Amino acid sequence: MAKINKHFLELKASYLFIEIARKVREFEENNPDKPVIRLGIGDVTRPIVPKVVDAVTDAMKDMGTFEGFHGYGPEQGYAFLRELVSKNDYQDRGIDISIDEIFISDGAKSDCGNIGDIFSVDNKVAICNPVYPVYNDTNIMGGRGENILYLNCTEENGFLPEIPSEKVDLIYLCFPNNPTGVVGSKEYLQKWVDYANNNKAVILFDSAYESFVTEEGIPRSIFEISGAKTCAIEFRSFSKTAGFTGMRCGYTVVPKDLILEGTSLNSLWNRRQGTKFNGVPYIVQKGAAAIYSDEGQKQLQENIKYYLNNAKYMKETLESVGLEVFGGVNAPYVWCKTPKNMTSWEYFDFLLEKCQIVATPGSGFGECGEGFIRFSAFGDFEKTKIAMARVKENL
Amino acid sequence: MAKINKHFLELKASYLFIEIARKVREFEENNPDKPVIRLGIGDVTRPIVPKVVDAVTDAMKDMGTFEGFHGYGPEQGYAFLRELVSKNDYQDRGIDISIDEIFISDGAKSDCGNIGDIFSVDNKVAICNPVYPVYNDTNIMGGRGENILYLNCTEENGFLPEIPSEKVDLIYLCFPNNPTGVVGSKEYLQKWVDYANNNKAVILFDSAYESFVTEEGIPRSIFEISGAKTCAIEFRSFSKTAGFTGMRCGYTVVPKDLILEGTSLNSLWNRRQGTKFNGVPYIVQKGAAAIYSDEGQKQLQENIKYYLNNAKYMKETLESVGLEVFGGVNAPYVWCKTPKNMTSWEYFDFLLEKCQIVATPGSGFGECGEGFIRFSAFGDFEKTKIAMARVKENL
Repeated sequence: MAKINKHFLELKASYLFIEIARKVREFEENNPDKPVIRLGIGDVTRPIVPKVVDAVTDAMKDMGTFEGFHGYGPEQGYAFLRELVSKNDYQDRGIDISIDEIFISDGAKSDCGNIGDIFSVDNKVAICNPVYPVYNDTNIMGGRGENILYLNCTEENGFLPEIPSEKVDLIYLCFPNNPTGVVGSKEYLQKWVDYANNNKAVILFDSAYESFVTEEGIPRSIFEISGAKTCAIEFRSFSKTAGFTGMRCGYTVVPKDLILEGTSLNSLWNRRQGTKFNGVPYIVQKGAAAIYSDEGQKQLQENIKYYLNNAKYMKETLESVGLEVFGGVNAPYVWCKTPKNMTSWEYFDFLLEKCQIVATPGSGFGECGEGFIRFSAFGDFEKTKIAMARVKENL
Repeated sequence: MAKINKHFLELKASYLFIEIARKVREFEENNPDKPVIRLGIGDVTRPIVPKVVDAVTDAMKDMGTFEGFHGYGPEQGYAFLRELVSKNDYQDRGIDISIDEIFISDGAKSDCGNIGDIFSVDNKVAICNPVYPVYNDTNIMGGRGENILYLNCTEENGFLPEIPSEKVDLIYLCFPNNPTGVVGSKEYLQKWVDYANNNKAVILFDSAYESFVTEEGIPRSIFEISGAKTCAIEFRSFSKTAGFTGMRCGYTVVPKDLILEGTSLNSLWNRRQGTKFNGVPYIVQKGAAAIYSDEGQKQLQENIKYYLNNAKYMKETLESVGLEVFGGVNAPYVWCKTPKNMTSWEYFDFLLEKCQIVATPGSGFGECGEGFIRFSAFGDFEKTKIAMARVKENL
């Protein structure tokens, strides 16, 4: 008799976005005259920039010709894209990452989830709370549910958890952080890197939001930290950088110096990808390559500035009325303490009913998110302004 | 100290295509005047059809506008594509598969590999020999290396293995078969389905080559077999059907009636995909949808006929000179017994040196492939003709 993977049954149902959608639908049905402004989801709204559109359409036209047709590509991604990543995102910033340390993928979610394949079930895993749910759920599915240590991120520690006293083996970190929007300084990340090197732990570093870093000196990559190449894997995505949430492309960096039990994690990941993945569409990789052109960069940066301006506007407005706010400077998320000690869901309901705004209850990201609400900066500026005016009027 | 997944170390290095590439490169360097004809790899060569090119370029242009932009899509795929799959590939052929049983993915390789996530490590797995290496390698990685029972596919059993006496829980079947090109009749597949239902086993059915079935009565889907919906999962791909090897799109069908230990495998797979996958690019799904248009179908069928004509030509030529040949009728592969009891690699070398043809040694797919060579029908017809003339001249 075939048997299921019972660890799936340990997963909590992920009601968060389903519950939000249900509440919004209900409100809209009962209030057809009151249009709702959505500042909840982390999805981008601005279109793909012209330089990328042109690159993809050109590549697709090529695919319709005998000369320009591309079949199976390298599972690790085309060299033309890996070279651009290596040069622009690393070498030009003084970080020595070579193209065979870069694996192009269909997005950070897949890689953050699949990376568990190369590690033993017996690792102790450190995961922040609140957190992007994928780290947690994929470890439960993989049989590490009993081996998760949650690192509480609270107002008291500035949402930057200290190194735990209990030994951990795999450490998920995400900066700029989703959902709190905070960043880790070099000094802060150095502590984790030193811990990892001293304890032969591995840091799984999600820097999907690195392009939103505005302040000087804030690291965009874990590999800016001395010693990281012997203890860290980095996940990157074009989703937020270039509006690729519907295009599906990102990459993962596994340094060749990262050796565990005498085995290169680079070669394990290479084997995993070569066996269970068949690469990203050629046309999408051509689009991703266009991101690195001068024109592409110029066009993208306008969108990033647009979103950051939304974040700044929200942060300033919320602070001006006395609310306590985190993030929003180096991240597209504003993490706001609810007024009057409301729970996350109470404030969610209040915002929906009184202000016709959808935000995301912080408690949906883990219990330590209780008492907070997340506003996303990925909306339209005019609507964001209206939303903030309503928050102000309804305190 | 972090620990690796040691099961990766049980994998044999996959030298097959690397070794082929090395030998071909060497030959070409030493014989620059002798152009080589490639009938080795299973990759398509004909361009994407115009209807699909137009659909993708139009969708990409939409992505560059506020109105037409698409961000995160459903992890299971857009309803527009799942509806087309359900109607055209199942309902219209008398098979009741609904859209919530269909999961759009980036290809059959990913799904065949990832499906192991939803099953316990403790399942006994039946895998054919010779075989597409992904089934084998992903089970080894997943910790089932000790639990694999190989089903020998030999000339004696017509490459259609009998049901083993030993109990098995998960059964990988692929028809039309890669590498042998043989198909399973309804009666043959019925035996497996009955076995699976009687023993609560699950059939993992790879029908990536179903569009090459030419003979009446040969099943294209496991769900044509009575009882399959309670015991089978089916993997499909647009790679060979529509030349999508570089476009990356396929789908997996997990029937709602497939219940194991009281748990719906459909809901487990839905959870797996929702947690570790973020869907296929919108533009690629629009391209896949165009496959189902009348014009798209007409254009595709020309390519499929073209490849099948290559297969027929190879089969007839090889048979005409007394070689023993399997496949090539309902499949794009011709599985040929080597002449004069040569080993697969000996005949590979002979073909390369004497005929300047690249084929794939059967032993590369498992020991039972020894003494066979695989010719792929995915090449150019004129070149295929020249290649076959050379085989004839050099027996």
